[in-house]
Amino acid sequence: MKAPESAAQPPGTSPLLVLRRVGIDTYKENVAYLHRDCAVYRAEGFQALSKVEVRANGRRILASVNVVDDVCIVAAGELGLSEDAFAQLAMEEGHSVSVSQAEPPLSIPALHRKIAGERLTHDDFRHIVQDIAEHRYSKIELTAFVVACNQSELDREEVFFLSDAMSRVGRKLDWREHPVVDKHCIGGIPGNRTSMLVVPIVAAHGMLCPKTSSRAITSPAGTADTMEVLARVELPFEQLTEIVRAHRGCLAWGGTSDLSPADDVLIAVERPLSIDSPGQMVASILSKKIAAGSTHLLLDIPIGPTAKVRSMPEAQRLRRLFEFVAARMGLALDVVITDGRQPIGNGIGPVLEARDVMRVLENHPDAPNDLRQKSLRLAGRMLEFDPDVRGGDGFAIARDILDSGRALEKMRDIIAAQGIKAFDPESPPLAPLSFEVKAPTTGTVIGIDNLQLARIARQAGAPRAQGAGVDLLAKLGSPVRSGDVLYRVYAAFPTEMEFARQSCERASGFQIGDAAALPSVFVEF
Amino acid sequence: MKAPESAAQPPGTSPLLVLRRVGIDTYKENVAYLHRDCAVYRAEGFQALSKVEVRANGRRILASVNVVDDVCIVAAGELGLSEDAFAQLAMEEGHSVSVSQAEPPLSIPALHRKIAGERLTHDDFRHIVQDIAEHRYSKIELTAFVVACNQSELDREEVFFLSDAMSRVGRKLDWREHPVVDKHCIGGIPGNRTSMLVVPIVAAHGMLCPKTSSRAITSPAGTADTMEVLARVELPFEQLTEIVRAHRGCLAWGGTSDLSPADDVLIAVERPLSIDSPGQMVASILSKKIAAGSTHLLLDIPIGPTAKVRSMPEAQRLRRLFEFVAARMGLALDVVITDGRQPIGNGIGPVLEARDVMRVLENHPDAPNDLRQKSLRLAGRMLEFDPDVRGGDGFAIARDILDSGRALEKMRDIIAAQGIKAFDPESPPLAPLSFEVKAPTTGTVIGIDNLQLARIARQAGAPRAQGAGVDLLAKLGSPVRSGDVLYRVYAAFPTEMEFARQSCERASGFQIGDAAALPSVFVEF
Repeated sequence: MKAPESAAQPPGTSPLLVLRRVGIDTYKENVAYLHRDCAVYRAEGFQALSKVEVRANGRRILASVNVVDDVCIVAAGELGLSEDAFAQLAMEEGHSVSVSQAEPPLSIPALHRKIAGERLTHDDFRHIVQDIAEHRYSKIELTAFVVACNQSELDREEVFFLSDAMSRVGRKLDWREHPVVDKHCIGGIPGNRTSMLVVPIVAAHGMLCPKTSSRAITSPAGTADTMEVLARVELPFEQLTEIVRAHRGCLAWGGTSDLSPADDVLIAVERPLSIDSPGQMVASILSKKIAAGSTHLLLDIPIGPTAKVRSMPEAQRLRRLFEFVAARMGLALDVVITDGRQPIGNGIGPVLEARDVMRVLENHPDAPNDLRQKSLRLAGRMLEFDPDVRGGDGFAIARDILDSGRALEKMRDIIAAQGIKAFDPESPPLAPLSFEVKAPTTGTVIGIDNLQLARIARQAGAPRAQGAGVDLLAKLGSPVRSGDVLYRVYAAFPTEMEFARQSCERASGFQIGDAAALPSVFVEF
Repeated sequence: MKAPESAAQPPGTSPLLVLRRVGIDTYKENVAYLHRDCAVYRAEGFQALSKVEVRANGRRILASVNVVDDVCIVAAGELGLSEDAFAQLAMEEGHSVSVSQAEPPLSIPALHRKIAGERLTHDDFRHIVQDIAEHRYSKIELTAFVVACNQSELDREEVFFLSDAMSRVGRKLDWREHPVVDKHCIGGIPGNRTSMLVVPIVAAHGMLCPKTSSRAITSPAGTADTMEVLARVELPFEQLTEIVRAHRGCLAWGGTSDLSPADDVLIAVERPLSIDSPGQMVASILSKKIAAGSTHLLLDIPIGPTAKVRSMPEAQRLRRLFEFVAARMGLALDVVITDGRQPIGNGIGPVLEARDVMRVLENHPDAPNDLRQKSLRLAGRMLEFDPDVRGGDGFAIARDILDSGRALEKMRDIIAAQGIKAFDPESPPLAPLSFEVKAPTTGTVIGIDNLQLARIARQAGAPRAQGAGVDLLAKLGSPVRSGDVLYRVYAAFPTEMEFARQSCERASGFQIGDAAALPSVFVEF
């Protein structure tokens, strides 16, 4: 074999193109735009959606090809990159880049074995997670991984492999002390803002509690969304570290995508599919806690007819899976199974929830008692991670810290440190439009649908519109008369108001009936 | 509940936007481009990748949102559509369109049940396939469906449900005669161009054989790619119908996407994942044959160490699945299991394969005998679908038709009817660059890797470059001396030449050894 005379360039290289930023946000999927007449596109035989490797100055990223027929977007000698991809390559426009067929990610054979239903090894998961974190998987491959792991349920060793691999690909924090405590709820209960009470209580006691909180993904508010009503939450990493060291806690986090980059990528397909399998939930939560440097974790699993977990056997299975994986990862874990039959507190949506939280901290007479009690119980369990606290004493210590105003003081310190925003819980900045939903009959509230109320609050604009959401005036067990207001919906825009109203008309989310029909709940504390 | 005074428009509608075509080919996925400052985008709270419904003049399509920051692509008052999506909506630029959150496809709960591993009903498959054919599924949802069906293997009733649903969503042909015969190979064997011999033979006998052939998806040439060397293959549907009626056969098809639109969509995710599960293969093939109006089908399942099917038990399982589903669909099916140990014929790539086919038709002394023999056997079996042909007589009839020149004459008629292209099999228009791969030792060829030779031919440019590919000078059982040429590779461009050469250096695809080590094959005919 002899190289043909006409081979003008070294093997494997291709002519250079001029880099151009294309102002399109393709959300976590890198897209490379090549003009249909581009010589490289023609010579390399890329097809639409081919994966290519873009190289410049020793940097390289992967992207999917979209073919362009408009020179205003990219010309024949240019390579366009979507916004995320452009940021990842981190080169100036006009720079020379080369592009070639991407070798398939090395972990693809392992992915195919998982699709075929096989059990994967620790190394398989390490390679897959590495490729995912480095954006080497297409959306199709990501989905295939998520669905394959979901369907032939991962065994618990595999969940450990996945969690461990996910915790290792990102940044890892080391607080250089012990214990470092955190709490987490598996989600699904609107208004459940216990973190904003537990963190000040636990930090006031002196334990280090660098809470990693997130924005809402499918819910009407996440802890970060609600905290943002009171304080800045997007802070540079170094400033947050200082706040945590100075005040023993924080309620803000900008770094979760650094801490578990694979999780950040996977969520882009899990969210639209509404897939939340036990294995993926455990891996997502525990990998982030380990990466954030936590040594102790209190996990809240709410159960109820419209919660994520709907029966005690299911909750116990999930608890055992969390316990097995946490133990393998060296994380001390305490699991509480809580009442998830209805929303916690009165407000659903950032402003309304911030009002509830501040009222509890201020020992205000209108503070929602369920939010107070649950927060005290969780904080009490966390305090018992302190070797100097006797088993059973945590609740009383937590209550003392709250009742004495030390929790409020700690919260004010944290708010001031993060950057205070003006907020008066007694005149909260609610969205301007509202309507009321009233009881159609007289009776007792015997059911509140978490999913429907979350949907209504989101349709009303939460969390994007901070003042939008739902304010509950009745809870499970409340006696109501026909025409009494069950809840008020707040919205910022007429369209959103209308969407929410239509939902309420289809299903209010409230069930009125005989007090005897009130479902009982057996939860652990 | 009372509508707020400020509600300026009827519920559920949104302000109108101006339609714009965005010159980006997003390959089967509809994308809607909205500017980040677009009032609708802000008010509706679309997120990146949200699915939206675009409506204009009573027409509606679904699309995924990409957010744009460049008014040259779309301005704030415009809605941009990718090329496919724009064509689907079939409206002029500048037309007013409205856009709103898309309701999730109604079949999504069924998809979730399949992801959870449940068995689906006939209705479930009907709804899923309908939504897929109407482009209501995102790429993520399509992948989830394909992987879920692949992993918890569909049972044979489900394969029938899927096949039946797929055959019903598209156009259905009715030739108003009986039998209407077709043949199909499950693929995987390079150079296997038997259709181009079988169709003229069977049509010369007088049977109606409107062969539905396709372009290469992952192979170095499909029948349509090879036929395109000899004749036009992209013809309007009406013209093709006329040709079939006049000549009893054709070797072109433009309408497969009309015949099985769901298959056309699914392939966009199956291809990048290289998923080809038995259930999906059966549904894809049989749904298209039924929609094309076939009453009888001859199916070719090659087996060999580098074929799609690698053992006789596996081939028999696949045969039984095809037979079960075909029977339920009312299609008469005959399955032959053939020798798939090596490529068929000498050439791999459109021009080289067209040369082989024409030499067989012309009874040329250099015609590849394996291609001739296999085609005669398949044609013979198809002729036996004719109630007037006695079992066992088919082969001799086929051989008469070929040897007498009647098959060549029929092929010339079909070529002329479709639109002839200049082609001389004795001086084929090969690609200009070439190199040879030689035997490293003396011995017998005891193995030829189908996959590696297909890969080399593709890297050399086939089928895009018609004259590119691989020309085999030795086949299984050939005695070779060290330095003898095993095959020649033809390429159109230096880069491609280099890619192919690197592949050959890594693995030539040929195994030379002792004649006794030649694997035997037990196939049925």
